Amino acid sequence: MDNQEDFFDRSRIEQMPQRFRANFINSLSGFKSASLLGTSNGTTANLAVISSVVHVGANPPLLGVVMRPHTVRRDSLENIKNTGSYTLNHIGVAFTDKAHQTSARYEKDESEFYATGLTPWYSESFSAPYVKESSVKIGLTVTEHFTLCNDTEFVVGEIKEVFLSSSNKDALKDDGYIDIASLGSACISGLDTYHSTQHIAKYSYAKPDSDLAKMS
Amino acid sequence: MDNQEDFFDRSRIEQMPQRFRANFINSLSGFKSASLLGTSNGTTANLAVISSVVHVGANPPLLGVVMRPHTVRRDSLENIKNTGSYTLNHIGVAFTDKAHQTSARYEKDESEFYATGLTPWYSESFSAPYVKESSVKIGLTVTEHFTLCNDTEFVVGEIKEVFLSSSNKDALKDDGYIDIASLGSACISGLDTYHSTQHIAKYSYAKPDSDLAKMS
Repeated sequence: MDNQEDFFDRSRIEQMPQRFRANFINSLSGFKSASLLGTSNGTTANLAVISSVVHVGANPPLLGVVMRPHTVRRDSLENIKNTGSYTLNHIGVAFTDKAHQTSARYEKDESEFYATGLTPWYSESFSAPYVKESSVKIGLTVTEHFTLCNDTEFVVGEIKEVFLSSSNKDALKDDGYIDIASLGSACISGLDTYHSTQHIAKYSYAKPDSDLAKMS
Repeated sequence: MDNQEDFFDRSRIEQMPQRFRANFINSLSGFKSASLLGTSNGTTANLAVISSVVHVGANPPLLGVVMRPHTVRRDSLENIKNTGSYTLNHIGVAFTDKAHQTSARYEKDESEFYATGLTPWYSESFSAPYVKESSVKIGLTVTEHFTLCNDTEFVVGEIKEVFLSSSNKDALKDDGYIDIASLGSACISGLDTYHSTQHIAKYSYAKPDSDLAKMS
């Protein structure tokens, strides 16, 4: 190797203090999407910051979310199971502080919306609350869920409706790509660190015998 | 709403042309980790760009990956199932072009390492290849996998070893957080767009009755 490496085998990982290990392992998955999960039990609108949204498929349109019982409020998971519906709202670089504040352990009947100053907004067809401040709002219904080996849950949901802020009319490109950086979407590393992004390149479809082109 | 919204209901999404819809839906999951998945069938070292890595747990240390049979080379998934081991290597901002080139459909016995100019590197204890150029290298073994409703697979793996480039000795913080931005890790939006990141804030642990502090 040109550079020396710091090496961590399994026993060195297991000897880490619990909080150190949580920070270390949570950094390994790379930059993560920054979303607020909106749910309702009929009376209280709940909101939880979540960094485990993953693309599952485009047709039908599906997103997955890993929910860890000890980090995500049980309320949110219970609400999803009881109502079948939830929203995912991109966290904007302008309100990462309010978004992160939703991870505090509020009382069961206290809404994180009102506690943090974010604004609930409802569409005509959906019972779960959206975050008004979010430029990308997605309404989903649960399709299936799996319990993983460490008792976390992997929830797959079908996208039913999408709202894009039209503060930037040019964000939706001709090929369907949404320029989420121009809409102010943030990303997360580790458990508590938020980032904005800078464009490097959009590449052409890769083929074995030709060089990539930079599309933008 | 202060701003008008662009609204997409399910029928509008279904009417999108296939490629447009793929770009649109792939943008909704937000910024995604940018990794190269390294596998081997014993003779050929395969490498595939992947943006679906998700944190599953810290103790035991677990990562999940969604693998779509029609986007990820079947080779990689077959290699994982046959050998049980694979590597995840952060894509650096300095080699997003080479990383993206691995998504071309090479012949079955052709290694994406040699085709793209990335360098295979092996640890003492692991049969799957690492990417030498990557600052964060993770070796995993399969723990469980699930077939989802659209025939994609969700593979959960246990982290067995981690190599951090020590080109930046300060990247590993006292609390266990790895400053992956300082190590040059990139992120992805949509299917083909790569980004670097800029630090906004690292927040303190959120509590109901106190304001967040910026730790850095």
